[in-house]
Amino acid sequence: MLSLVLAESSLELVPKELQQHNSVISHSRKLGKNPSEILLDNSWHFGAMKGIKDEIKRGRPDLVHISLLEACTIPLYYEKKITIYVHTISDKVIFIGGDVHLPKSYHRFAGLIEKLFLEKVIEADGSNLLEIKDMTFDQLLEDISPKRIIGLSTQGIKSSCENVAKKLTSDSCLVIGGFPKGNFSDKIKKRFDYLESVDNTPLESHVVISRVLYEYEKTVFM
Amino acid sequence: MLSLVLAESSLELVPKELQQHNSVISHSRKLGKNPSEILLDNSWHFGAMKGIKDEIKRGRPDLVHISLLEACTIPLYYEKKITIYVHTISDKVIFIGGDVHLPKSYHRFAGLIEKLFLEKVIEADGSNLLEIKDMTFDQLLEDISPKRIIGLSTQGIKSSCENVAKKLTSDSCLVIGGFPKGNFSDKIKKRFDYLESVDNTPLESHVVISRVLYEYEKTVFM
Repeated sequence: MLSLVLAESSLELVPKELQQHNSVISHSRKLGKNPSEILLDNSWHFGAMKGIKDEIKRGRPDLVHISLLEACTIPLYYEKKITIYVHTISDKVIFIGGDVHLPKSYHRFAGLIEKLFLEKVIEADGSNLLEIKDMTFDQLLEDISPKRIIGLSTQGIKSSCENVAKKLTSDSCLVIGGFPKGNFSDKIKKRFDYLESVDNTPLESHVVISRVLYEYEKTVFM
Repeated sequence: MLSLVLAESSLELVPKELQQHNSVISHSRKLGKNPSEILLDNSWHFGAMKGIKDEIKRGRPDLVHISLLEACTIPLYYEKKITIYVHTISDKVIFIGGDVHLPKSYHRFAGLIEKLFLEKVIEADGSNLLEIKDMTFDQLLEDISPKRIIGLSTQGIKSSCENVAKKLTSDSCLVIGGFPKGNFSDKIKKRFDYLESVDNTPLESHVVISRVLYEYEKTVFM
């Protein structure tokens, strides 16, 4: 089965050192939760996030939400021809089950992911919908053991969604950044067999995901 | 320029008759707004919405948000080859300007649209980013005066995203439902020159938008 990894994704709970910041405390009160139990979100915690390590790559759970929706609402996913993983910037990996209806409503998605960070597994009818583990990108690749790893980035060789899709086989792993700005760090990039750029215009991750998976779907179903 | 209309979209302020409902009052308090100033949202106002007219088509601003993001974050939009309109279930039309960076964060999007409903226009640097008018679907079509109107629905003739894109010309109007369930009402459907279905699997509006516009983009840019 094709694997899709959203790598270094901008998805984490508010880290300890920011939990005392006013913006975090007031936002967590609004949500009726503890500051340690809510997602780091640039649109609420902008003040707290100033100057933190990897600042431009962090605190955008909304982007991860949209990217995941692109991958989980298509025939390729419904027909179980793809497995989806979210590797986070702080080296956790979320395993997305094969039958997950992710909430489209953001506040429900955030609530679900916050629960996942605390409880480690979200189950329904005895099977895991979502599971989170401490895991590096390297460890995840070991787990998947794909034949071919293709990273997508504006830094890659000029290609197209169609051409990337043609390179994908059912034992390939497609890697797309789950962060808003910046590039893959070297430890991710060095694992790619191919690094390609799908458009002349820099496209956002959710657009790249929808287009490449759509093109791949054509090769699988036609 | 190609026109895209999200028709009968699930986007409205809480109507007067629901503003006294507990779920609406407590949610509006949480947002620090008046019940008359917030978007109707099934995920908060489920109790209030039970049994209202057209219930299954209403209260899903999250879906409209995702559909709009699909259309506004692609080269076709950046290169001004498409104009986007949101026709709502209560016969208002939102005109989306050509240079709009819609917030990806849902609560910011909701805040922006709530402001639009109250102030009618959102401007920046002297030009309209968003404008809302009382307008029926028929009146909007009169305004656009397209040569060809293509509706997409599971009720349509079996086609594909590629074939729909081939039918589209720069003076066509593409119409997709902006609601979660159900079908276009007859007054919308009777205006279509073509009614097509793009996949064997029923796809959500945001998926159809991203795929058809991507295929159309290929015909425009290649």
